[in-house]
Amino acid sequence: MCRFVAYLGEPIYLDTVVCTPRHSLVRQALKAEEAHTVTNGDGFGVGWYGDRTEPGVYREVMPAWSDENLLALCATVRSGLFFAHVRAATGGGIARTNCHPFRHGKWLFMHNGQIGGYAGVRRALEAQLPERLYAARRGATDSELLFLLALARIETGVPPADAMQGVLQDTQALMTGLGIAEPLRFAAALSDGRQLLAFRFASDDRPPSLYVGRRADGHIVASEPLDGSPDAWQGLPASSWVRVDEDGVTLHS
Amino acid sequence: MCRFVAYLGEPIYLDTVVCTPRHSLVRQALKAEEAHTVTNGDGFGVGWYGDRTEPGVYREVMPAWSDENLLALCATVRSGLFFAHVRAATGGGIARTNCHPFRHGKWLFMHNGQIGGYAGVRRALEAQLPERLYAARRGATDSELLFLLALARIETGVPPADAMQGVLQDTQALMTGLGIAEPLRFAAALSDGRQLLAFRFASDDRPPSLYVGRRADGHIVASEPLDGSPDAWQGLPASSWVRVDEDGVTLHS
Amino acid sequence: MCRFVAYLGEPIYLDTVVCTPRHSLVRQALKAEEAHTVTNGDGFGVGWYGDRTEPGVYREVMPAWSDENLLALCATVRSGLFFAHVRAATGGGIARTNCHPFRHGKWLFMHNGQIGGYAGVRRALEAQLPERLYAARRGATDSELLFLLALARIETGVPPADAMQGVLQDTQALMTGLGIAEPLRFAAALSDGRQLLAFRFASDDRPPSLYVGRRADGHIVASEPLDGSPDAWQGLPASSWVRVDEDGVTLHS
Amino acid sequence: MCRFVAYLGEPIYLDTVVCTPRHSLVRQALKAEEAHTVTNGDGFGVGWYGDRTEPGVYREVMPAWSDENLLALCATVRSGLFFAHVRAATGGGIARTNCHPFRHGKWLFMHNGQIGGYAGVRRALEAQLPERLYAARRGATDSELLFLLALARIETGVPPADAMQGVLQDTQALMTGLGIAEPLRFAAALSDGRQLLAFRFASDDRPPSLYVGRRADGHIVASEPLDGSPDAWQGLPASSWVRVDEDGVTLHS
Repeated sequence: MCRFVAYLGEPIYLDTVVCTPRHSLVRQALKAEEAHTVTNGDGFGVGWYGDRTEPGVYREVMPAWSDENLLALCATVRSGLFFAHVRAATGGGIARTNCHPFRHGKWLFMHNGQIGGYAGVRRALEAQLPERLYAARRGATDSELLFLLALARIETGVPPADAMQGVLQDTQALMTGLGIAEPLRFAAALSDGRQLLAFRFASDDRPPSLYVGRRADGHIVASEPLDGSPDAWQGLPASSWVRVDEDGVTLHS
Repeated sequence: MCRFVAYLGEPIYLDTVVCTPRHSLVRQALKAEEAHTVTNGDGFGVGWYGDRTEPGVYREVMPAWSDENLLALCATVRSGLFFAHVRAATGGGIARTNCHPFRHGKWLFMHNGQIGGYAGVRRALEAQLPERLYAARRGATDSELLFLLALARIETGVPPADAMQGVLQDTQALMTGLGIAEPLRFAAALSDGRQLLAFRFASDDRPPSLYVGRRADGHIVASEPLDGSPDAWQGLPASSWVRVDEDGVTLHS
Repeated sequence: MCRFVAYLGEPIYLDTVVCTPRHSLVRQALKAEEAHTVTNGDGFGVGWYGDRTEPGVYREVMPAWSDENLLALCATVRSGLFFAHVRAATGGGIARTNCHPFRHGKWLFMHNGQIGGYAGVRRALEAQLPERLYAARRGATDSELLFLLALARIETGVPPADAMQGVLQDTQALMTGLGIAEPLRFAAALSDGRQLLAFRFASDDRPPSLYVGRRADGHIVASEPLDGSPDAWQGLPASSWVRVDEDGVTLHS
Repeated sequence: MCRFVAYLGEPIYLDTVVCTPRHSLVRQALKAEEAHTVTNGDGFGVGWYGDRTEPGVYREVMPAWSDENLLALCATVRSGLFFAHVRAATGGGIARTNCHPFRHGKWLFMHNGQIGGYAGVRRALEAQLPERLYAARRGATDSELLFLLALARIETGVPPADAMQGVLQDTQALMTGLGIAEPLRFAAALSDGRQLLAFRFASDDRPPSLYVGRRADGHIVASEPLDGSPDAWQGLPASSWVRVDEDGVTLHS
């Protein structure tokens, strides 16, 4: 179980969300509250959009709490749309290529959860990738694969939220067909640099937690509330997704 | 607060102590029980004696639990005298040069605890180092400095245990003289490749925990018992030290 | 173009071959002589057999010349059969999972060269892997894939050298069928812990260099001679392979 | 011998200078032309000023050419004043804390060269540091020490260029007094976020190379010209320094 946070709004320094809050993501790395796995020390990553189409990404295998580069980066980079993620590895090994967020062209993606029985379903899922995206795999995680599967649909013209949901449905069907009993669990964020989509889903009744928070200058999607104010944070229902863009937040459930 | 373990006895694979036990050091890295700081993810190190005089050392800034090199090393290296340490940084930054154990010639040293108000006393302590050991400093920790201060005395012929205790007394006196209120806390292990010395000390009434355990093939000194057997582990009293060598364990308190 | 060295003989310290010689592997990392790419600084690895069936492996993304852990390891680990490799990345990214040698059970493998047009042929090659080996992929290199393809044949009872050669022939045929003009180049070492097999091959007339050297206590297979003695080193002809075991060296060409 | 580049002018993406030019710093890391040491693969760093007083810093022990984080950072961060450095270690070990640029408050510093016989003079130099700067040492390099010695003078009101030159003179005098025959060599850049100072000095007749280049949008100080245009680059004479600010370049020799 990993922890993540995404922001869309007025440009702010990354540390405003990633490092400073009482229950910031860097704090959650050391001591998450709404997760089985308390420690998320198996690497981390941040991704941020600037003036160019392609976002910046910084990923590292150290724990977020001990990386001075991360602090310096978050204290000096300002962005109106950024992702941050701390990892508790469930598979795929500790490597930068397995750290979130994943980037492909203008797209960013990060994920908390897992494909149950992944070893048994990985091959069938990878076989669905078109040639160019198949060659784009860099790591060994189920997360990167789900991202590329969604991109494959998006590239054929499917709207991003439909693409992501279609991948989840088909993956669940594939798992059922293969007799895999472990669940598919999925909390994730996806962006093209203009809008932020976030998803909460599980094939059983235990989807990973996901919240939307309101700030004066924008919105946050996070695995756990970053502070204690009960009004500011709204939990997403299971099997729902939200779109955050300049018009605000739209919940689809 | 860090956690460590040291072994002296018949040659065994490092993983016997470091990775395999129910409450092994690698487990303690993720979830220590007898420490303020639950997570010890700020790097780790192992040191082991073989046929050569100088011990081998492997130190890394990643958490012990996520490093495949550590698992492979511990599964293939066998030694009759070795150290292992997981770090929760109190100062000095996350760098290999700040990871324990420290090596100097044939000597290995590792430490759990700290010099209170270190920034204020560091300079006076470093001034006590003879030229060659002053130049040997590689990192920025109080631990490395205490090690070199002990070596400075050992090189003049003082017995190792006396040297270490002398450094502690003089450091405490220096702290008192400078009006430093924070305590000096010290659990540590020191070896020259033949004997293993372990120390438990504090200037207040809260020295870090330290245990000696008996195995069929040797003895273990550890911050916490590695398993639940109440008979096998004996806690060291405060202000005591033990010598472990081929003749067994001798407690000095 | 990477550089590598393998040793089989009386147990010796790894540094005897890896660090000490005038033109040791660590030196070759900084300044190779018989390669297009002078610098091999994109990670390294060592693998060594001991008493257990499974070999130890230490792989790191830093250059070999700057890693103190490597020096310490090579100075204290002794083995009668070991591999060492320095990498100049041609693809797959800089990650430990892409560093050689690769290990699978009792097997070690390392490679210098590449599959031309790999992005176009990767999928077809991966499709040949049986389920369990498909799930064993950790990185993104052509080298790891060639290793697993050979293991797939070995597990069905094909002798290792035949398996490796069969993979090369079939891969070349596949590349030709797909109209890939770039060559397949391959210098590699493979071991099961008892024998050492080394291969030199190319689909064009420029196979990577490979030498066998004789020492008083054993044999070395290396990308480049480790010292200047003209008598001790014998270059392998193109399209040949050697077996090194306790009976000596057998050349097959 | 390291290589570095500094820029002051209109805000530009870091990659414009660090990664893109034909002979960019990343290229120099792999193959420097005007240096004894061809390969500068022992870590690197970038530092950049933004809206806040304190600059951002990213330092890593991998070679610059293999770090994807560096590429992504340089492609997305824009700054009107930044430093970049690739290291060929002469001492102090491979650690982030030994990588340039060094930061202290609003100050950035990077260095190419060395204090000859450093082990013999280190202690006397460190003794000159005031308490607070003494405690600020994080690594073990002569470069960090020279930086802190200059800051010690600056904090007493000495103009930065005078402070730096005073440190060089006094260090050279100290070396002479101690009978150190090895030279003091020094090419360096220093900034407070508004102006860029660069120095070229040696106690013998071989100061490290240093150039000032003119771009349409600003000025560059670099160890080696970043491209082949002979008009755009001007070599600094030995024992000189330049100030680059919004008024242009002023040479002092």
